[in-house]
Amino acid sequence: MKQFNYPKVSEWKSLCERPLQNQENLESQIKEVFSEVKNNGDKALKFFTEKFDNVILNDLKVSEIEVDEANNLVPDELKSAIKLASENIRKFHSSQQEEKKIIETTEGVFCWRENRAIENIGIYIPGGTAPLFSTVLMLGIPATIAGCKNISLCSPPDKNGKINPAILFTANLIGIKNIFKVGGSQAIAALTFGTETIPKVDKIFGPGNQYVTTAKQLALNYNVAIDIPAGPSEVLIIADETSVPEFVASDLLSQAEHGTDSQVILLSNSDKIIKEFNIEIEKQLAELPRKEIAKIALKNSKSILLSSIDEAINFSNYYAPEHLILAIENAESFTNKITNAGSVFLGNYSPESAGDYASGTNHTLPTNGFAKNYSGVSLDSFVKKITFQNITKTGIKNLGQTIEVMAEAEELIAHKNAVSIRLKYLENDN
Amino acid sequence: MKQFNYPKVSEWKSLCERPLQNQENLESQIKEVFSEVKNNGDKALKFFTEKFDNVILNDLKVSEIEVDEANNLVPDELKSAIKLASENIRKFHSSQQEEKKIIETTEGVFCWRENRAIENIGIYIPGGTAPLFSTVLMLGIPATIAGCKNISLCSPPDKNGKINPAILFTANLIGIKNIFKVGGSQAIAALTFGTETIPKVDKIFGPGNQYVTTAKQLALNYNVAIDIPAGPSEVLIIADETSVPEFVASDLLSQAEHGTDSQVILLSNSDKIIKEFNIEIEKQLAELPRKEIAKIALKNSKSILLSSIDEAINFSNYYAPEHLILAIENAESFTNKITNAGSVFLGNYSPESAGDYASGTNHTLPTNGFAKNYSGVSLDSFVKKITFQNITKTGIKNLGQTIEVMAEAEELIAHKNAVSIRLKYLENDN
Repeated sequence: MKQFNYPKVSEWKSLCERPLQNQENLESQIKEVFSEVKNNGDKALKFFTEKFDNVILNDLKVSEIEVDEANNLVPDELKSAIKLASENIRKFHSSQQEEKKIIETTEGVFCWRENRAIENIGIYIPGGTAPLFSTVLMLGIPATIAGCKNISLCSPPDKNGKINPAILFTANLIGIKNIFKVGGSQAIAALTFGTETIPKVDKIFGPGNQYVTTAKQLALNYNVAIDIPAGPSEVLIIADETSVPEFVASDLLSQAEHGTDSQVILLSNSDKIIKEFNIEIEKQLAELPRKEIAKIALKNSKSILLSSIDEAINFSNYYAPEHLILAIENAESFTNKITNAGSVFLGNYSPESAGDYASGTNHTLPTNGFAKNYSGVSLDSFVKKITFQNITKTGIKNLGQTIEVMAEAEELIAHKNAVSIRLKYLENDN
Repeated sequence: MKQFNYPKVSEWKSLCERPLQNQENLESQIKEVFSEVKNNGDKALKFFTEKFDNVILNDLKVSEIEVDEANNLVPDELKSAIKLASENIRKFHSSQQEEKKIIETTEGVFCWRENRAIENIGIYIPGGTAPLFSTVLMLGIPATIAGCKNISLCSPPDKNGKINPAILFTANLIGIKNIFKVGGSQAIAALTFGTETIPKVDKIFGPGNQYVTTAKQLALNYNVAIDIPAGPSEVLIIADETSVPEFVASDLLSQAEHGTDSQVILLSNSDKIIKEFNIEIEKQLAELPRKEIAKIALKNSKSILLSSIDEAINFSNYYAPEHLILAIENAESFTNKITNAGSVFLGNYSPESAGDYASGTNHTLPTNGFAKNYSGVSLDSFVKKITFQNITKTGIKNLGQTIEVMAEAEELIAHKNAVSIRLKYLENDN
């Protein structure tokens, strides 16, 4: 990790820059995949699955037998862990349900909001060596709490045409029945347009490589919504002399092992602490199976010495990290000052991996500075809030003239008439 | 209005199609504006203002003197109306504030969300003959309730280099100080990149013509968020024999006068009612100043006879209207069945224009079928919800093994270590 000492505020911008992502080149390729899937449906999906995943599939949909098989393959210890995590995630996301509040804004004018589930949603779970069953929990549980009617899960098959058992077990645990063996941009295309087997959805959730994230951006052009714009994962840790070097180093490495483009930022008011952390990082790094990945990520990472914890909080707000760990004394007393972050971990015993898996908070969070303008995924991401208004005769009498005057000033006379006609009717009524 | 009788469900799709919007051609032109504004800042803005708005400006920012002048120009009656509307809008949007709920998901594991304002927001208000001061209320009030630090309002100047007094009065009333005389795609570019005069923002709100809405889509590529995707305004009215033809006709015309591309859909279970409405529409239309616009909009509009109110609700959910008026008996008893709509107006005395101006609900709503996957603008649109977690020593002991097992199964060993190291430390601690 490169160290920067007491940078001037004018230097913060360049210190906060994320690695550039070049997506331009992928677009034309993905547009072709979209067009193929739109026109040829399942046939195109099978073609791309053979081409990209090297496997010929008869059925795109995972069968009940496959789910049963998966059930037998997942060790009991993992099953229990997934169940405990799912309970925490369910508790926290259930608490986000909003009660209906009817507000009488003027006598006789009643306004309120009601939540409705987005009916058709798609969840994308990447393939690869590590099966991201935790993401199935993070997206599937709020979807079921919200009451989404049709939940379709897509994940690429392995060379044997199978989806990882832990993913199937988790999906089954939370009641997702429609699981499809399709990955990459072709999966996003299928969810965007629908095929014979895969239903068209209203909103697409989930992480993925550059093909998948570019495809999700493209899906926006076809009236499909997406969870949040994507970028490489990142953590910012603020540490002072009370923090434990072993803990902080392990948290930094958790982030660094995600991928070579992971971003790790360490802020401290103590040069001594930064030096100690670096020694500890080297020690822990040597033991990691994914040390080659972590090493590259650490090369792009920064430790920054600042004059105070308050300055560090200011820097963090400027950076707007996906994950923010406050490994400092009285961490909770600083929460009010945090303005931009995805998810915040307070104190020495709140590692990022707790939020990644099991504390209950969601791990689908805004990266790349998007914590300035986006929230992470929550129950809100799976619902629309519809406004209702019920205006009584008294209400329209109280509000009528106001509407008439405003509509006339905006030169929308039919808008005014809609009120005048009603007021006149009520006058005659009396 | 074209009438369709008892269409089959298989015909609903084509009946629900919105007019196609061709934005492809605008993109290259707007990209050039973006590049000019990015590189030349205010100079480019003044150039485009001269080119498109036919006025040479010295200062882009509206001065305090101009605001005072505007204050004197707005009639008292309009001022009072705007104030009453703003109180209702404030009441309703204030009720959307969320209280902090700390959830203990497992003993010693505390999770919660806190709202933080999006710091820098931009509001676009179109110019033209009709000054949309109501939109200043709808966007400015929730922004101030949320606590957005920097609110920048852009609106194109008229030929005399002025912004409509009602817009300035309204902005000043709710405390917006930074008002800029710039419109079109150059305004969106200014908010996206920032210039010497206009600050860069995190999120852009507001309606506009195709140049503005295409520019907002383009802004998404530069890490700026936008309120909702745009489309022409629309209303769907469900009417039965209890509804009053004069009322329904006036509501249909309110929508039709918005623009030639406005969408109006009337659903009823009574042929008699549809016929009566059409006579009434013709009668009211003849008197409207904007009748030429309304006439064209009505040509593209549809009245559809269906077998029951329940079928009409199903059709409406399929169409997903921006505005839905239930001009039917016991309207409130049908609210549970509504799954897709932006804002709903119940009964005979809840005209759409009430929600457009003064009932308290927001009028920035999802069009073009986006009510399936987007909410209208609300207080939520101006905040991020940050998750926090505070895990105690007891908490990590309770949750630790679960995280270890899951992290190992996802092959993320550094994630596991972050917990193991802490658990070991606590063991030694005892």
